Amino acid sequence: MKFCSECAHPVALVIPEGDNRPRYVCAQCSAIHYQNPKLVIGSIPVWERDGELKILLCKRAIEPRFGYWTLPAGFMENEETTAQAAVRETEEEAGANIEIGDLFTLLNVVHVHQVHMFYLARLLDLDFAPGIESLEAQLFAEHEIPWDDLAFPTIRKTLELFFADRARVAQGGSYGFHSHDIVRPMRSPELA
Amino acid sequence: MKFCSECAHPVALVIPEGDNRPRYVCAQCSAIHYQNPKLVIGSIPVWERDGELKILLCKRAIEPRFGYWTLPAGFMENEETTAQAAVRETEEEAGANIEIGDLFTLLNVVHVHQVHMFYLARLLDLDFAPGIESLEAQLFAEHEIPWDDLAFPTIRKTLELFFADRARVAQGGSYGFHSHDIVRPMRSPELA
Repeated sequence: MKFCSECAHPVALVIPEGDNRPRYVCAQCSAIHYQNPKLVIGSIPVWERDGELKILLCKRAIEPRFGYWTLPAGFMENEETTAQAAVRETEEEAGANIEIGDLFTLLNVVHVHQVHMFYLARLLDLDFAPGIESLEAQLFAEHEIPWDDLAFPTIRKTLELFFADRARVAQGGSYGFHSHDIVRPMRSPELA
Repeated sequence: MKFCSECAHPVALVIPEGDNRPRYVCAQCSAIHYQNPKLVIGSIPVWERDGELKILLCKRAIEPRFGYWTLPAGFMENEETTAQAAVRETEEEAGANIEIGDLFTLLNVVHVHQVHMFYLARLLDLDFAPGIESLEAQLFAEHEIPWDDLAFPTIRKTLELFFADRARVAQGGSYGFHSHDIVRPMRSPELA
């Protein structure tokens, strides 16, 4: 941020009175421009028939991580709820119709100023198709998950937790809610 | 937003190519200025001795809702996790030392573009004192909660859910995780 978005005067990084950390402040109109973490919200679309369970993943058609696989997810917009954001992103990225379930993971990705959340979801039909931000949309059984080609650490963590809970669900348990902090990965340090 | 924060040129509200909703776009440098919901995070500081349970609330010294009671909470900052934000806000607003517990509520407040989250917390000692954004910090038993003078609907909802779960905990149950959407209240429509 270089200029005030209210009056176009250059901003300076200073600690405002009564605050305890630097903010972009406009010396002309006194506006304080706060910067806060963003929410990235997605779903875990599950298709289950005859005891076989598959998860819908999308191959990214955009940077970062072009060509890598992800759960459908994206930035939450104003004027929607977290669950609505998950449904919208799943429709936009995978052309998929889901019934949204409970919140499954909340993952802090501190070094990129993001909080990621993934909802359990039931895929309602097989009429899915990649949206403009995806190259492919495809169902994967657990043994088919492309673990080495997942786009982000939060996708891997969510899938690992899902299949661990799934094993317990098969024995009469239930899915939990999981909160984790993602430590900056060794590879791709600029990415979530 | 009136001017580009990167080049100071006036911005226009247009739908960028490949997008489906209006954004503030700069015609000079092509920057797209996205606006997304903010996270407000707080704690439910619990003090329990000899079977009696009390909750720490703060009386607000700032607008909006000056003079009304709230759980310690505020905007999540960059460079921290959601749990760290809850601990920081509790220290800043109530001068209180807590041991953070599980996430208890996630509340969408769509009309103000906010997502509120409250963590269960154990108050570690009675050395609390109001911070500069609070007039008072005080412990309340359930029958003492100032229900008519709470600052925001998310505070009321979180306290209602807490005491409902608390009744179950007393009978051997456990605290749950609760997600709700707050519909615009009839009073104070400009507030969360």
